[in-house]
Amino acid sequence: MYTAQIKITLRKSILDPQGKTVEHSVQSLGYRNIKNTRIGKYVELEIDASSQEEANRITDEICRKLLANPVMEDYTFQITEQSEAEVEQS
Amino acid sequence: MYTAQIKITLRKSILDPQGKTVEHSVQSLGYRNIKNTRIGKYVELEIDASSQEEANRITDEICRKLLANPVMEDYTFQITEQSEAEVEQS
Repeated sequence: MYTAQIKITLRKSILDPQGKTVEHSVQSLGYRNIKNTRIGKYVELEIDASSQEEANRITDEICRKLLANPVMEDYTFQITEQSEAEVEQS
Repeated sequence: MYTAQIKITLRKSILDPQGKTVEHSVQSLGYRNIKNTRIGKYVELEIDASSQEEANRITDEICRKLLANPVMEDYTFQITEQSEAEVEQS
């Protein structure tokens, strides 16, 4: 069992009004040293795959087909193997 | 200059209908080996702080005060220092 942690962000060239809004709020709280705030999505899922490579391949396919919009968004992900103990807990 | 990468997720005990919907969509694409899908927010920001500890403290404060809802959400973050080259580019 593997866990995939996926981060999906707007491409650098695309304006992020949600990020700008958060940045203004942060600055109005007094934190003037914050900039370049970008908001994205975070997706965590468990994959029952036979190897790390297969988990990688499945995650990449899911990102391309469903989770990310390739025109506007970039994605990065990390695959970690769950220990036996964690699998039993879940 | 430091970069903070913040992941905000719903607490484990709270139902995640958005995650369930994504999971159903993924499974209807033929990936039956996916489970426990959870959706969260991802925030990236740059902090002009004098030390890693200060960047940590500021990020934690911003998460508590503004980004995360402490009743329903958990957050984790990672602080990385930007190299001189990266700072000049931005």
